[in-house]
Amino acid sequence: MAQDNLTAVLHKPLDLRLEQTEIPQINDDEVLLRMDCVGICGSDVHYWQHGSCGHFVLKKPMIMGHEASGVVAKIGSKVRNLQVGDRVAIEPGVPCRYCEFCKSGRYHLCPDILFCATPPVHGNLARYYKHAADFCYKLPDHVTMEEGALLEPLSVGIHACKRGGVGAGDVVLVLGAGPIGLVTMLAAKAMGASKILITDILESRLETAKKLGAHHTIHVTKDANEADLVKLVHEKLGGHPDVSIDASGVQSTVRLALLATKSGGVAVLVGMGNPELTLPLAGAMAREVDIRGIFRYVNMLVWINEMNLVSKIIYLD
Amino acid sequence: MAQDNLTAVLHKPLDLRLEQTEIPQINDDEVLLRMDCVGICGSDVHYWQHGSCGHFVLKKPMIMGHEASGVVAKIGSKVRNLQVGDRVAIEPGVPCRYCEFCKSGRYHLCPDILFCATPPVHGNLARYYKHAADFCYKLPDHVTMEEGALLEPLSVGIHACKRGGVGAGDVVLVLGAGPIGLVTMLAAKAMGASKILITDILESRLETAKKLGAHHTIHVTKDANEADLVKLVHEKLGGHPDVSIDASGVQSTVRLALLATKSGGVAVLVGMGNPELTLPLAGAMAREVDIRGIFRYVNMLVWINEMNLVSKIIYLD
Amino acid sequence: MAQDNLTAVLHKPLDLRLEQTEIPQINDDEVLLRMDCVGICGSDVHYWQHGSCGHFVLKKPMIMGHEASGVVAKIGSKVRNLQVGDRVAIEPGVPCRYCEFCKSGRYHLCPDILFCATPPVHGNLARYYKHAADFCYKLPDHVTMEEGALLEPLSVGIHACKRGGVGAGDVVLVLGAGPIGLVTMLAAKAMGASKILITDILESRLETAKKLGAHHTIHVTKDANEADLVKLVHEKLGGHPDVSIDASGVQSTVRLALLATKSGGVAVLVGMGNPELTLPLAGAMAREVDIRGIFRYVNMLVWINEMNLVSKIIYLD
Amino acid sequence: MAQDNLTAVLHKPLDLRLEQTEIPQINDDEVLLRMDCVGICGSDVHYWQHGSCGHFVLKKPMIMGHEASGVVAKIGSKVRNLQVGDRVAIEPGVPCRYCEFCKSGRYHLCPDILFCATPPVHGNLARYYKHAADFCYKLPDHVTMEEGALLEPLSVGIHACKRGGVGAGDVVLVLGAGPIGLVTMLAAKAMGASKILITDILESRLETAKKLGAHHTIHVTKDANEADLVKLVHEKLGGHPDVSIDASGVQSTVRLALLATKSGGVAVLVGMGNPELTLPLAGAMAREVDIRGIFRYVNMLVWINEMNLVSKIIYLD
Repeated sequence: MAQDNLTAVLHKPLDLRLEQTEIPQINDDEVLLRMDCVGICGSDVHYWQHGSCGHFVLKKPMIMGHEASGVVAKIGSKVRNLQVGDRVAIEPGVPCRYCEFCKSGRYHLCPDILFCATPPVHGNLARYYKHAADFCYKLPDHVTMEEGALLEPLSVGIHACKRGGVGAGDVVLVLGAGPIGLVTMLAAKAMGASKILITDILESRLETAKKLGAHHTIHVTKDANEADLVKLVHEKLGGHPDVSIDASGVQSTVRLALLATKSGGVAVLVGMGNPELTLPLAGAMAREVDIRGIFRYVNMLVWINEMNLVSKIIYLD
Repeated sequence: MAQDNLTAVLHKPLDLRLEQTEIPQINDDEVLLRMDCVGICGSDVHYWQHGSCGHFVLKKPMIMGHEASGVVAKIGSKVRNLQVGDRVAIEPGVPCRYCEFCKSGRYHLCPDILFCATPPVHGNLARYYKHAADFCYKLPDHVTMEEGALLEPLSVGIHACKRGGVGAGDVVLVLGAGPIGLVTMLAAKAMGASKILITDILESRLETAKKLGAHHTIHVTKDANEADLVKLVHEKLGGHPDVSIDASGVQSTVRLALLATKSGGVAVLVGMGNPELTLPLAGAMAREVDIRGIFRYVNMLVWINEMNLVSKIIYLD
Repeated sequence: MAQDNLTAVLHKPLDLRLEQTEIPQINDDEVLLRMDCVGICGSDVHYWQHGSCGHFVLKKPMIMGHEASGVVAKIGSKVRNLQVGDRVAIEPGVPCRYCEFCKSGRYHLCPDILFCATPPVHGNLARYYKHAADFCYKLPDHVTMEEGALLEPLSVGIHACKRGGVGAGDVVLVLGAGPIGLVTMLAAKAMGASKILITDILESRLETAKKLGAHHTIHVTKDANEADLVKLVHEKLGGHPDVSIDASGVQSTVRLALLATKSGGVAVLVGMGNPELTLPLAGAMAREVDIRGIFRYVNMLVWINEMNLVSKIIYLD
Repeated sequence: MAQDNLTAVLHKPLDLRLEQTEIPQINDDEVLLRMDCVGICGSDVHYWQHGSCGHFVLKKPMIMGHEASGVVAKIGSKVRNLQVGDRVAIEPGVPCRYCEFCKSGRYHLCPDILFCATPPVHGNLARYYKHAADFCYKLPDHVTMEEGALLEPLSVGIHACKRGGVGAGDVVLVLGAGPIGLVTMLAAKAMGASKILITDILESRLETAKKLGAHHTIHVTKDANEADLVKLVHEKLGGHPDVSIDASGVQSTVRLALLATKSGGVAVLVGMGNPELTLPLAGAMAREVDIRGIFRYVNMLVWINEMNLVSKIIYLD
């Protein structure tokens, strides 16, 4: 086996170095992967610029990267699901397998989960990387390594829609047409949503959203009036959205989600910049609009992959 | 208003007559409809041939028909959702609105529901017919009257998939490729199912199913071995179906549904010919395969129509 | 029949008069009730003091009262569930029966619901009052009229617990030990909750809560530190609550609910004083703590009554 | 440590021997237990008498026992939840932790689960036994070792009620008043069921059921007429049961469950003797009565123990 293991290590903010590191030794239930494609997530950029993301803080050098695909180079003695040479997508979080969250189907909430490139856990932006074999999913032949790496961000969009209960015929409002807003929209379409309205402050993003199949768009300007926006959403959709999904994380979009959603519907909040928000909660509560957050995803990558959802979603239009 | 109200009245088995009947007087919450398109359901044929269907028995002359669309000719004083001239699809069952089933969202189980062409309730195969306004749904301009009439059988397929919890990425087995099997398959696809295997004893039906998007088919022969069939289902799908939906109603297909479904999955039984069946229940129960029946549908037509699902489904491929 | 119909009519704030009003004429599906017991709700007091409650404003004289029981004095021609002389509890909201909310089991969200003593709809604090027969529930012989009137506020507590998914073995935090907090606690116990911690700013209320079966209490003082309170909740319960139910409606208790609930749990917000709140939402969302409001209740009174829950709950200890 | 490890080993049907076996060596995540109390389950008796139970067959000598409690004698290096001397209840099934069932919260359906005293896996009727530490639950001080051993069969009853969705106010029919029928009844009461009717062919069992809180009983005789029994169930309960739970496993009781349950309700089948049954399925399906089996239990013992449910249930009356 090659000895070269060039690795992207973040030492401190703005100090990212390409260094040789040891090729890892695998355990019985792990595989060694020859990495192929690793995406750059917003969180990666945040660590590089600020040395932190949310309440996670970089305290010692950390290998970057968690949106990845690779090829199996070596397998542990107990591994049955993979063979050397298999092309795989990687689910970057490996939970403890012992706690109540792991046992009840919500392992993403495991307090001891090890998640790539979340301090102090190393990521996989290296030549070689080892991972739990059961969190690597063999790619079908027609799925490229780039698409394989995309399973990770796609999972966020699908988990958001699943949490919102998006189903066939639903009218969905997506707030924010950045990468997560777009994968959320694609996920909603794959789940059968019939009408999707997506909003953003950038026209260019809305153009992309339209190409990917958005039925309606709203270009939100800085000085937009809240009540007018709610009215516009209802006009464009010919009614209230069953599910609203906020993929912006700012106060104004969260407020819009709460105000616009149908009584008895769901507002999903995908991620938030500000830990504290001032919200018109009383109205949403009195209309029984449920508010649900998401933390990464659970049981999604395997599902996207086995079910061929990556192609379904990526080539939707 | 015209006085002609030519009507198809079933007097007794094989005695169907075209007769003039009174144009009905409407109540405050009803509309009078100039009927346009009325489908012929298997149950209609059954009443015509045998004078009964399941435990419903024809005891006096009954107007036929329940898969229908029409144009609003007159509206009651309290009707707000429709106007004269509106083209509508008809949901043929009108429940009592007072019982616990009506109040808890399962009005299709209302013991006092009046359902078109189910003795002793008259159907709508006539020039003029009156109906509760809130069970008539205005068709979008691009939906034809024929498609409008199809909302009713489509609803059965969608209700079956909803009861089975069919969602994005699911692997679905549909048993029977007759009209209900086909609309069930189309519904499953619209809900995001990734792989669908459909079976039948007639090759010609499977050809139609393929054209409508079935991923796999199995032509079941008379002397097929049960264990071999189960194995074949798993081979074709590369695993067990998450949901199996029986649209044949015979013992052999119900058995196949129970045997083939994944542990923890769901077997939906759409309709059954024989009141008593002999089944390998112990195995299905020990694998926690849930068994769910359906009775018609609930909250479906309005949903199909508003959400534009009819076009989505009919023009799926 | 007697002609006396002494009635409590609120003309404007602080102007409540006892007047004779017409004994109402009933419709086919209604009953006339000789009222027996009518509770005074916080909302009644609010209308009397301020002429409004939330966004409901008193614009013309309104009969007060909605927590009530009575005796059937007369029945409409279509009424089958009741007879003259029956003692009944009254569910004070009668929905339209036609909209999508009414048909899907969430009739309490019907935009056209007529709810007693919510302007401009009259209440039932009178000698005689008419009501939809199917929203009157015959009381078992051993349930008193006072208890019958209590079904209404009890329903709020049960609906809150149902919305929170409270079940056997759950650890529940109730914030606020006023009347609604107490019925919520009793409801949680009846549903099998194993540990209940209730908080309040008044010691006296906590004493009552203990007598009614609270396992733990926290007396919250004005200058309580938020982080310390969260810690104290976890210490008292030996872990995180599965479900937190806020029955105070102030910012500090809503915050505590969000911060203290277990990851993957539910925070139910029963009612809120301030339309806008500033909340630590990001943390709750990242831990997938769902937030659910309630609006009155649905399908509850019939259920409490038929199931004999009133006795079960009232005589819990 | 003592060297005595007297063990109950079943060599073949009717050949059970007390022998000395090796005291097991523990792994990092395991504990060694000094066994205290081990119940005798119907399955144990079946293996002893017939050498098989369902499709599990004894092919080589097997240690008996799976309803058990013990005291921690030694802990593995990674064990954090227990200490030497802790009194624990044992959940006898340890799943693979890697498959989709393990990851999605249904580890009891894991095809590679190792379950005590299910061939070829040894049980714990020995002086010393080793087990995965996270499937041992520390007992509260007031719970005896005998009660600790009872957590296992109690779990079956609770899982049955959970699968049936039993909740506060539900009317429940339990078929069979043997040990599993009784724990099921106790579980239903702990979950808030308001009326429970239990049936059996033995009067003596019904007497016990009454003492444990059954509201109604029916003594079923050999020549009982099916339609009459259904009628009697409805008369005794004053309506249809929301949930029926069969704990007998014979054709006649399964049939009664399907026929008696309310439309839209659930029939839970706990275990079945005969692999094939002849059933009136069409009626149950047309009334949307769902049929759900159970396989052992999942996430139950930890929950019963932590929540103090054992005392709640055992000392219910």
